[in-house]
Amino acid sequence: MRLLAFTIVSVALTSAALAQRDSSNTTKPASHTPMLTRTDIQSVSPALDRYTQVSLLGDLWKRPDLSPRDRSIATLAALIARNQTIEMPYYFNLAIDSGVKPSEISEIITHLAFYSGWPNAMSAVAIAKEIFAQRGIRADQLPAAAPKLLPLDQAAEQQRAAAVQQNVGPVSPGLVQYTGELVFHDLWLRPDLAPRDRSLVTVSALIVSGQVAQIPFHLNKAMDNGLTKAQAAEVLTHLAFYSGWPNVFSAVPPVKGVFDGRPN
Amino acid sequence: MRLLAFTIVSVALTSAALAQRDSSNTTKPASHTPMLTRTDIQSVSPALDRYTQVSLLGDLWKRPDLSPRDRSIATLAALIARNQTIEMPYYFNLAIDSGVKPSEISEIITHLAFYSGWPNAMSAVAIAKEIFAQRGIRADQLPAAAPKLLPLDQAAEQQRAAAVQQNVGPVSPGLVQYTGELVFHDLWLRPDLAPRDRSLVTVSALIVSGQVAQIPFHLNKAMDNGLTKAQAAEVLTHLAFYSGWPNVFSAVPPVKGVFDGRPN
Amino acid sequence: MRLLAFTIVSVALTSAALAQRDSSNTTKPASHTPMLTRTDIQSVSPALDRYTQVSLLGDLWKRPDLSPRDRSIATLAALIARNQTIEMPYYFNLAIDSGVKPSEISEIITHLAFYSGWPNAMSAVAIAKEIFAQRGIRADQLPAAAPKLLPLDQAAEQQRAAAVQQNVGPVSPGLVQYTGELVFHDLWLRPDLAPRDRSLVTVSALIVSGQVAQIPFHLNKAMDNGLTKAQAAEVLTHLAFYSGWPNVFSAVPPVKGVFDGRPN
Repeated sequence: MRLLAFTIVSVALTSAALAQRDSSNTTKPASHTPMLTRTDIQSVSPALDRYTQVSLLGDLWKRPDLSPRDRSIATLAALIARNQTIEMPYYFNLAIDSGVKPSEISEIITHLAFYSGWPNAMSAVAIAKEIFAQRGIRADQLPAAAPKLLPLDQAAEQQRAAAVQQNVGPVSPGLVQYTGELVFHDLWLRPDLAPRDRSLVTVSALIVSGQVAQIPFHLNKAMDNGLTKAQAAEVLTHLAFYSGWPNVFSAVPPVKGVFDGRPN
Repeated sequence: MRLLAFTIVSVALTSAALAQRDSSNTTKPASHTPMLTRTDIQSVSPALDRYTQVSLLGDLWKRPDLSPRDRSIATLAALIARNQTIEMPYYFNLAIDSGVKPSEISEIITHLAFYSGWPNAMSAVAIAKEIFAQRGIRADQLPAAAPKLLPLDQAAEQQRAAAVQQNVGPVSPGLVQYTGELVFHDLWLRPDLAPRDRSLVTVSALIVSGQVAQIPFHLNKAMDNGLTKAQAAEVLTHLAFYSGWPNVFSAVPPVKGVFDGRPN
Repeated sequence: MRLLAFTIVSVALTSAALAQRDSSNTTKPASHTPMLTRTDIQSVSPALDRYTQVSLLGDLWKRPDLSPRDRSIATLAALIARNQTIEMPYYFNLAIDSGVKPSEISEIITHLAFYSGWPNAMSAVAIAKEIFAQRGIRADQLPAAAPKLLPLDQAAEQQRAAAVQQNVGPVSPGLVQYTGELVFHDLWLRPDLAPRDRSLVTVSALIVSGQVAQIPFHLNKAMDNGLTKAQAAEVLTHLAFYSGWPNVFSAVPPVKGVFDGRPN
């Protein structure tokens, strides 16, 4: 794996970089130029540089229970759900290099408009647009706006719809309506992101934003869609680094509940 | 309604815009120039563009149970509470165009200093300052620093103060003191934002930041202040799009608890 | 205390500042130049300026139960955990001026990589790097990457490890492993931030990010490490202003549980 050179967030540094660019007459976008080098990190915390090199890059990303492609998907979901746009350029590129197709990145962003809010998705669009342009990704590589949808699992959908009608129906009929028509009869059936990967995105977003109450339904769905226990366990491990230990520890009880309730 | 042209967050794009401005010698602020056009969104996700046009703008904002003015207030509260500054220029302008007075925007920001933290409010000030300047909003259109306050509802306040004294008193006397003197005997009584709108701001902020434990008190207060069940139901629907489905689903049980406990 | 001049977040204003710098040929970094003056705040909300001057700066920071040094540590933890980078330059400087050593700031950032996620820490590095450079802080003032660690409290650690093995072991062995080896046998034993201050950072981060489930363990640890009840009470009061009232009110029940369970 390449050096994980974290891009910077400081507008100060960005403007310094802009100044440099101004003098050198280059036109390379700022978000890809300024990044924290190892020297930068060491100038504040030699310890953080060591943890990054040894524990994060040298160990975590190489653990066998989750592929680099899956780790990339979970990381993108974490960054988008937490609106951490400045690290996105690096991780969008890493994701594509790890086998996530541009069409899948497109779907991940669209999916997270619904699962982490429109503004988060739009922030990600602004970054992905640049990455796609730099890599020469063309319109015909993107999913159609309204493709032929995957078939609906009628039994599972009836169960879901009945539960939502019972719990949400008395509170917000509009929410029930959009949840059915837009989220489960449309978004989830779009064919360019496998249901298992869509679930991986959803569960990751729930964990990193502290939405523990929604984990049981979506982790069960993820496992129905093919995510294994070993993979789910390793998603937790991975996201501890990307969203902090507390978020992940708070997710352990509902994850345990789901694991205990399933045979496999 | 005008085209909802999402402003971009990418420093990369901003700097590209800066470069353009440098060459054209314009002085228009960057945050209002660079925005995601429909073409930009389509270059990453034609599906997200379709959902934005058809579902969000073409349908959600036109639903009858919540006015565009109320939707603007809820959206501003969501953006400020989640510190999503880059979409603020568009939505501040939309709010004013939808009938939210500048004095009310001023109060919304001040209110959210207390309900989402000082840094979030200051971030919003930095954006609002530019919008107010562009629109020629003068100092005499803003609420006074220390106006004549609305009368205090003594009965409701006694009940609130007793509950806080009992629950918080043994833990943090300082918190009890500021909550009374500063929040309920001062902030909430400021006259330039109607109590009902202040409640709409508060409840929206609680929902989008996952603060479910505080929903019962504030939703009851909101409904005492005139927010109807149908409006509260539609606030949930609206905020699903702006903060993601999981936040809103997690808010449903406490909202249901409040609805069930009231006659109307 | 100096005027708390909030730095701005607006890319618009930043670029305006850039334009100014371009014309004046200065090279001062943008993040330290553009800031919200009192006039700026007044141009949007005279009330918010009044609350800032009278309640926040004139009163809160001067309350006796928490020193300005402790308030600085809690504030930095809040800003890093909530990823509010733009106010960091001011508060990094204020922290150093209030007696927080650069080596301690370095450790606070490293600590929060684990407690609020790697991207948050890296964002803070980008800001701290500039502040350290401006103040001439040299490499030999920073903690070593791998210093001689503090001795492990074997009894407390056995208890912690057993609890985590029981609760997390059946769910995610990788998480158990990193939590022991990396977090409690390494990070927490680093000598350049006192365990009591490390606990203050951790508890503050938990409160401001709504991680109530993790408060009991860490507040007990904090008090074992020397944080007093009066100080913990005042941390709540302080963080109400920096992360909003709802986060702090949601933290009151677990804090009360910890207080009730301890003799002192």
